[in-house]
Amino acid sequence: MEKIKGLIDAPFTPFYENGDVNLEPIEAYAKMLQKNGLKGVFINGSSGEGYMLSTEERMQLAERWVEVVPKDFKVIVHVGSCCLRESRRLAEHAQKLGVWSIGSMAPPFPKIGRIEELVKYCEEIASAAPELPFYYYHIPAFNGAFLPMLDLLKAVDGRIPNFAGIKYTFESLYEYNQCRLYKDGKFDMLHGQDETILPSLAMGGAQGGIGGTTNYNGRCLTGILDAWEAGDIEKARELQNFAQEVINVICHYRGNIVGGKRIMKLIGFDLGKNRTPFNNMTDEEEANMKKELEAIDFFNKCNLF
Amino acid sequence: MEKIKGLIDAPFTPFYENGDVNLEPIEAYAKMLQKNGLKGVFINGSSGEGYMLSTEERMQLAERWVEVVPKDFKVIVHVGSCCLRESRRLAEHAQKLGVWSIGSMAPPFPKIGRIEELVKYCEEIASAAPELPFYYYHIPAFNGAFLPMLDLLKAVDGRIPNFAGIKYTFESLYEYNQCRLYKDGKFDMLHGQDETILPSLAMGGAQGGIGGTTNYNGRCLTGILDAWEAGDIEKARELQNFAQEVINVICHYRGNIVGGKRIMKLIGFDLGKNRTPFNNMTDEEEANMKKELEAIDFFNKCNLF
Amino acid sequence: MEKIKGLIDAPFTPFYENGDVNLEPIEAYAKMLQKNGLKGVFINGSSGEGYMLSTEERMQLAERWVEVVPKDFKVIVHVGSCCLRESRRLAEHAQKLGVWSIGSMAPPFPKIGRIEELVKYCEEIASAAPELPFYYYHIPAFNGAFLPMLDLLKAVDGRIPNFAGIKYTFESLYEYNQCRLYKDGKFDMLHGQDETILPSLAMGGAQGGIGGTTNYNGRCLTGILDAWEAGDIEKARELQNFAQEVINVICHYRGNIVGGKRIMKLIGFDLGKNRTPFNNMTDEEEANMKKELEAIDFFNKCNLF
Amino acid sequence: MEKIKGLIDAPFTPFYENGDVNLEPIEAYAKMLQKNGLKGVFINGSSGEGYMLSTEERMQLAERWVEVVPKDFKVIVHVGSCCLRESRRLAEHAQKLGVWSIGSMAPPFPKIGRIEELVKYCEEIASAAPELPFYYYHIPAFNGAFLPMLDLLKAVDGRIPNFAGIKYTFESLYEYNQCRLYKDGKFDMLHGQDETILPSLAMGGAQGGIGGTTNYNGRCLTGILDAWEAGDIEKARELQNFAQEVINVICHYRGNIVGGKRIMKLIGFDLGKNRTPFNNMTDEEEANMKKELEAIDFFNKCNLF
Repeated sequence: MEKIKGLIDAPFTPFYENGDVNLEPIEAYAKMLQKNGLKGVFINGSSGEGYMLSTEERMQLAERWVEVVPKDFKVIVHVGSCCLRESRRLAEHAQKLGVWSIGSMAPPFPKIGRIEELVKYCEEIASAAPELPFYYYHIPAFNGAFLPMLDLLKAVDGRIPNFAGIKYTFESLYEYNQCRLYKDGKFDMLHGQDETILPSLAMGGAQGGIGGTTNYNGRCLTGILDAWEAGDIEKARELQNFAQEVINVICHYRGNIVGGKRIMKLIGFDLGKNRTPFNNMTDEEEANMKKELEAIDFFNKCNLF
Repeated sequence: MEKIKGLIDAPFTPFYENGDVNLEPIEAYAKMLQKNGLKGVFINGSSGEGYMLSTEERMQLAERWVEVVPKDFKVIVHVGSCCLRESRRLAEHAQKLGVWSIGSMAPPFPKIGRIEELVKYCEEIASAAPELPFYYYHIPAFNGAFLPMLDLLKAVDGRIPNFAGIKYTFESLYEYNQCRLYKDGKFDMLHGQDETILPSLAMGGAQGGIGGTTNYNGRCLTGILDAWEAGDIEKARELQNFAQEVINVICHYRGNIVGGKRIMKLIGFDLGKNRTPFNNMTDEEEANMKKELEAIDFFNKCNLF
Repeated sequence: MEKIKGLIDAPFTPFYENGDVNLEPIEAYAKMLQKNGLKGVFINGSSGEGYMLSTEERMQLAERWVEVVPKDFKVIVHVGSCCLRESRRLAEHAQKLGVWSIGSMAPPFPKIGRIEELVKYCEEIASAAPELPFYYYHIPAFNGAFLPMLDLLKAVDGRIPNFAGIKYTFESLYEYNQCRLYKDGKFDMLHGQDETILPSLAMGGAQGGIGGTTNYNGRCLTGILDAWEAGDIEKARELQNFAQEVINVICHYRGNIVGGKRIMKLIGFDLGKNRTPFNNMTDEEEANMKKELEAIDFFNKCNLF
Repeated sequence: MEKIKGLIDAPFTPFYENGDVNLEPIEAYAKMLQKNGLKGVFINGSSGEGYMLSTEERMQLAERWVEVVPKDFKVIVHVGSCCLRESRRLAEHAQKLGVWSIGSMAPPFPKIGRIEELVKYCEEIASAAPELPFYYYHIPAFNGAFLPMLDLLKAVDGRIPNFAGIKYTFESLYEYNQCRLYKDGKFDMLHGQDETILPSLAMGGAQGGIGGTTNYNGRCLTGILDAWEAGDIEKARELQNFAQEVINVICHYRGNIVGGKRIMKLIGFDLGKNRTPFNNMTDEEEANMKKELEAIDFFNKCNLF
């Protein structure tokens, strides 16, 4: 299977004031991302509040993204759900739409405690869209599925034909590297933490990745890959350090889903609020965050790199 | 609001061999439960694999249970979901059906970390069925919402008018008692662990509770309440000890959702398998479990008390 | 082996202003405890900051307690340590002193993850004082040893001849009861949470226990056992509820080791500060705690029961 | 203060068959380490089973290491203990010996939950050896002190004059980098995970580090730093990948303290067993581990790099 090169963005889901899904900003959103160097989108995932959307809303979003993305811009649809039948519906729908691939995290309920349960879960979803590559989205901090990923690769190898790889959103670059080396790189290991793109590149990985802060800091983050490829380690470090400075700020405002989504408003893409139970930022918090971002010259720098 | 007296059962959801929801056994199921002393059902909860059902399936189940339950047999509908809009649809539907009340656990994703988030979540659901009592279902081992319940009571008091109480499925009888004593018992604290009904009664609580092993051991468990009320502590202890012996067995087979559901088959109520990712018992495991149950004379005793 | 009836107190360790161990208050301390109905002391445990004491200090304390306790007042010495050779020295010393028994919690480092490791740890200590009963002190919240206690009993049975039982400081009254029922009560299961003495009694346990708030609320807590034995459940509930109210207060001041030790000062037993890294209460906190205790009429009630 | 360049080794503690500390192998041990490129030792830490040693044993070990190490070979003494008075004794002793510096992890009991507690703990130890640099040893997986290290640096800055830096044994290269960047590198951030030396170097860190597998794989690990400095990324990757292969093996045998110590025997340095409660490897396990190491050609490669 073709591996992903470059960074994919995990977009936020736009909502109207009344909380309905708002499809209007998506066309411009996609163009902006491509302009900033992103290679595609991973929609309806954690940044997209996918678990807080109904199946119908998730389908509408998939349809709209497919309609408006530029040529050669990949659309990956997250189809994970606690209800496997809904996941399968979403997978079938995505295949009909002709998206680039699908993905799923482990369900948060029931908490998955064994590889065999996880394999079965992935298998039932992947088999509903047999023509699409399937990515497992490893983000155990969100769903408690703290399972060894190398064991997952061994277990799916030869069993799930369209298993493409893992979106790896976890701290262990050791495990990440071991997965990357499995059978000389049989599976596509997508790096999934914007704060450590450079160290991952050094180890030989991170040719491809999926970002969350790429929504508003895409040039900087895609710039790390470019600088590395050009052999300019100093530039890569400078960019990675700036990326961490931006992440430092959103950590003061409940992370990317809440704080990051509000940065979009500050750069001209008002995507609305987060759904309950997310604790939306107050106007005062927004003003403070703006100051923090100005203090690191974010609003200029994010366009400069 | 009226408080619940006696035990409510959390039924399993019957499935056909192909995995579709099977409504057929429900009528007989309800009768059996009533015969064994149960006062109602809490449907589509964790025992009922509610999170693994689609919204439509959950509605069908609610409709069927309402149709067939005996007079004065309470139906409580669990409407919790990661997608609040689906929860609200379920709540509205339950109110139209005229069920006794609704309930919801905290969503497993995103993990709720503050009381205010939990209050808002409950508020949006409860307000969709304003004529029904709303129960919060506290089961932090399943969703990570390890929050202080007394703080929840204080926060909802005066804010969510139809907040009725808590189904308390956690080990702390200290916290349980403190909640029970809040404003002289303003809220209905339903005890939710079958292994500790007797100690909870001693403390003054557990007039009402919701059970999971009541599906197949209802006489024993309702018998604990009767014995206590009759002042027969020795009898209550004997029954509680037997209830624990049964729980010891299901703990060998992945707990009530997996092991307990299979006991139903052994007592003549074949409810089918569990949905993925639950790891269904093999036939060999079933045979071993049967032997363990025979060793404690379960199949006779469960009808005798 | 003789089982303990009634409550044992886990005393605080008195320190001088300069931080040295202060042996002076111990004689009066022991008398006060006996007057309040306690049957003995479990010294150098968690309430006693045992892990923060040197081996020599622990020996001095053991010697002093043995010297001054009234006749028939039991002294149990906690000898647990990360360094087993020190634990064995303490055990030998305790045996020479002729104390009633010894005990040990699991070491916090390295974290014990298997029953076999725990058995070996207990075995090496218990064998250093073969003439004394040995109690395992189960307090997993403090040392991470979340292991099944019934498995421990099975593993030590027939292997550690002087294994007497468990001081059970954990929430699961289900597991507690299962341990109590093992071989018709072969081992002495000492209840170890003051907030749930009554429910434990109802289940058939808690003839014996070890308390931490018994230091300043001993009459109330021993009164629960007396009321239960007299068949006066209402009185037992009243006392248990009051015990919880006191515990509610110390929970506002970092628990028993910090807040509880300061209550001693308020009732006339100034035992000094806690050792680093405990965060000692400020004078303002002390004043606030005093007000909270007055609000529940603690200073009168603690002497009345 | 002078920063450490290169890798420091965390040696195992040699024991005789009867469990007594064995000082004999230390001289040859030190020479071997230096020959393999190590710059010093961090003794009595987790690899050295420091918490399982008595204060006297720890002092003997410090004395012996100081006696035998080659010139310019640094000795850092871990002095952490649950009993601060013992830690201070060890710190004073180390200062008298004239070691290079001291260090301490957070105590595992009581578990430290706030920065202020940790600062106070470090302060009392560091002030007992005011002429020596003090390193905080961050290894939260072992002691539960999951605290933000940047906050620690801010809190000790200006308060603990001899605070030199942190031995950082945790996965977050993001936090590691943020600490490294604090005040343009004011503190010495020693990288503490052998599996990720290369990625850390890429980010700009890991000029200095402390290793555990450096005991038997020192040439490979120090080679990573050399290759990086020489601009040979391919060589650095090859070495880092081999280092991970070795770590893969010890992970099958309960990690470095147990499995790694046994590798020493296989390369001619029999250091004896681990102290209880460590679960020592059986002879069969040793034979299997040997085979696994042969399969990656460890015994040749470890001398070749």
